[in-house]
Amino acid sequence: MKYNPVELILKKRDGYALAETEISFFIREYLAGKIPEYQVSALLMCFFFQGAMPVEISALTRSYIESGKTLSFPDDLPVADKHSTGGVGDKLSLMLAPIAAALGLYVPMISGRGLGHTGGTLDKLEAIPGFNTQYSMEDFKDLVLKHGYALVGQSPQMVPADKMIYALRDVTATVESPALITASIMSKKIAEGAKYLVIDLKIGSGAFMPTLSRAKELAEHLIATGESFGQKVKVLFSNMNSPLGSAVGNALETIEAIEYLKGNYLPDTYEITTALVADMLLMAGFAADFAAAEKLIQGAVESGKALSKFAEIIEAQGGNPRVIEDYSLFDTAKYEVPIIAEKNGFIQAIDSRAIGYALVRIKAGRMKTSDILDYSAGAKLPFKIGDKIMAGEELGRVYCNKESEGKEVARLIQSAYAIAELPPKKEPLLY
Amino acid sequence: MKYNPVELILKKRDGYALAETEISFFIREYLAGKIPEYQVSALLMCFFFQGAMPVEISALTRSYIESGKTLSFPDDLPVADKHSTGGVGDKLSLMLAPIAAALGLYVPMISGRGLGHTGGTLDKLEAIPGFNTQYSMEDFKDLVLKHGYALVGQSPQMVPADKMIYALRDVTATVESPALITASIMSKKIAEGAKYLVIDLKIGSGAFMPTLSRAKELAEHLIATGESFGQKVKVLFSNMNSPLGSAVGNALETIEAIEYLKGNYLPDTYEITTALVADMLLMAGFAADFAAAEKLIQGAVESGKALSKFAEIIEAQGGNPRVIEDYSLFDTAKYEVPIIAEKNGFIQAIDSRAIGYALVRIKAGRMKTSDILDYSAGAKLPFKIGDKIMAGEELGRVYCNKESEGKEVARLIQSAYAIAELPPKKEPLLY
Repeated sequence: MKYNPVELILKKRDGYALAETEISFFIREYLAGKIPEYQVSALLMCFFFQGAMPVEISALTRSYIESGKTLSFPDDLPVADKHSTGGVGDKLSLMLAPIAAALGLYVPMISGRGLGHTGGTLDKLEAIPGFNTQYSMEDFKDLVLKHGYALVGQSPQMVPADKMIYALRDVTATVESPALITASIMSKKIAEGAKYLVIDLKIGSGAFMPTLSRAKELAEHLIATGESFGQKVKVLFSNMNSPLGSAVGNALETIEAIEYLKGNYLPDTYEITTALVADMLLMAGFAADFAAAEKLIQGAVESGKALSKFAEIIEAQGGNPRVIEDYSLFDTAKYEVPIIAEKNGFIQAIDSRAIGYALVRIKAGRMKTSDILDYSAGAKLPFKIGDKIMAGEELGRVYCNKESEGKEVARLIQSAYAIAELPPKKEPLLY
Repeated sequence: MKYNPVELILKKRDGYALAETEISFFIREYLAGKIPEYQVSALLMCFFFQGAMPVEISALTRSYIESGKTLSFPDDLPVADKHSTGGVGDKLSLMLAPIAAALGLYVPMISGRGLGHTGGTLDKLEAIPGFNTQYSMEDFKDLVLKHGYALVGQSPQMVPADKMIYALRDVTATVESPALITASIMSKKIAEGAKYLVIDLKIGSGAFMPTLSRAKELAEHLIATGESFGQKVKVLFSNMNSPLGSAVGNALETIEAIEYLKGNYLPDTYEITTALVADMLLMAGFAADFAAAEKLIQGAVESGKALSKFAEIIEAQGGNPRVIEDYSLFDTAKYEVPIIAEKNGFIQAIDSRAIGYALVRIKAGRMKTSDILDYSAGAKLPFKIGDKIMAGEELGRVYCNKESEGKEVARLIQSAYAIAELPPKKEPLLY
């Protein structure tokens, strides 16, 4: 071997930066089965403790990318994408992608599945009967070129190193490293060929990042890494203390997204979706300022073009586009269990993470990747932090197929809301 | 499983102390093959970065001990031992153990083999034709009870967890953790039944610990851990900037030790051996002060009792005790290559580590545990830091069986000596 893996671990452990050739050696030999997992996990833990220089993160990102195939689009095509760090009730991709495509951007959107308290775009899409998210990279590219976007899962041919290393991080407590998170996110977004990337970095009780300062460190890494590959990156910091929108749960969220494309906005999803699409349009030079971008976005929705784009991709990806008009084509829960507020007051805080985990019990989410979902399960939770509520009033509603489980989940969700007499300090939705 | 291993890694990673039950769970399940090595190496790296509380180190030590069998001796038996952190030319065990046994202490000495630049007591003993170092724990105990001491290798029945974890640390850059070093040393010394333990903690160019401050942290852990098991521990900090004594190499060192027991002391080996045995005698209540202890030690050597004890154990362990009178019974090197000083001056510094590694080339030491030694190979290096030398004078001599290799080693050793005009600052042998 060109290097001694122990010496590379030692170097990183003692705070020295690894060279690009050293990082690519380590990843390549690991994939080739020549470096054992126990050395990889030791190195990952050193990255957790020592952080990494921008050049190291770029090298790691490059080694992930080079482990698989990449997509490339013609130079003059405005290829843009969004990444979200994950939250509760985050169905923004389902609105954002058709709007952006309706406005002439090309969006090669590769999404993931839900795990733990957070949902995943693929699961929400698969709540649409027949919708297929598994495509070869070639077919995915064809879909994007033909329809302006596509909504698929990650191909095993793309960044396989990230997949292997993510699985190892997950079982070795090395997930929460800004350097490793950056390489994981950026390798996929660069390999898919996006030239403009907007990142929805969520902060708060329902997000992986608890504080703004941690999020800022991550944002700097994301932007620097994108730049080192010639990709423009914009990071938005959004508040994930209240679940996003009203619905949480796969079919319920997809329906909420369709309603949005019909012009039935909710204030929080409107603000964040518009901000994200506006940044994509601004980076691609489609609008001169936010006001112009917002006008374009409103036009795409209000003209019905974005909804048509959604119908178009549903049909192209094997789904039944009639769901747009007939929500009964979605799986529907047998029971609706109300969640009742126990006292008068203002909502001070919402434990969105606890809500996400509670909903796993009725299979609206999963704990293990092998868990099977119930698309119909979920909740509608229209109240936000700062809202006033009266004892006995309905805080929300749980949708389930086993009433006893639904009642338990309603109880858990109810206790995720902290209610007190005085209104809390107002928090912004975007920082 | 009682605990989730990932959560335990996370807890340690984030700086919280693990509970005794959590540590014993982790070690036990690893030994049972239920926790994979990649999780163990991640946890070990967290110990490296976060350190450990005394209770955690005790728990780790206990879990190592409980992974195997232990020895115990009658309560009234003064069972004492020495541990050295390893150096170049360190043959002190070969003098210390027979002296201590001659004075009535019981010394269940378990030693290791050389690796890298440092030598190992077992290899030096095996340079004696027929000498056997592999005994069951029962037979080892019988030898100690009958002869007052024995000089053996570690039984696989004893602290197997340490053996497994040490092997993993070695390939994951987690050796240099004071917490992990402490558990590794102390588990063996407690499992062997020693009530009094003196530790020769070596500092300097030929040692694993480069500085006194790092060594002091380790010493505090060693003492606290011993105390938590009811063992008295004394730590001596010794200077390992010059190789110890004159000989480096297995047969050469054993001969030097025999000469010592015949009363032919060298100043540095005399000072450290006497200090170590004196501490054993003081802890066991065999002497009231250092002066009294030194007198006992001198008496043991000058009466010939210590040498008889050495002959006794050589015979008991299957070796040929006639080596004591007839050094030609040892393997003897074909060639002696002089190492010539290139300039006049005082020796400023000696790179003992480089000397150790140079001697590996003629098989006086090994790089891998599977390497085969040449017992006859080595060097005699009588000069110490501060000594005056003239250009053309012999700095020392390499003993080898291939003259060309010997010349190369002589060249390497020669360049390990820094010589300058003015005498260097005098360093103590014991700090």
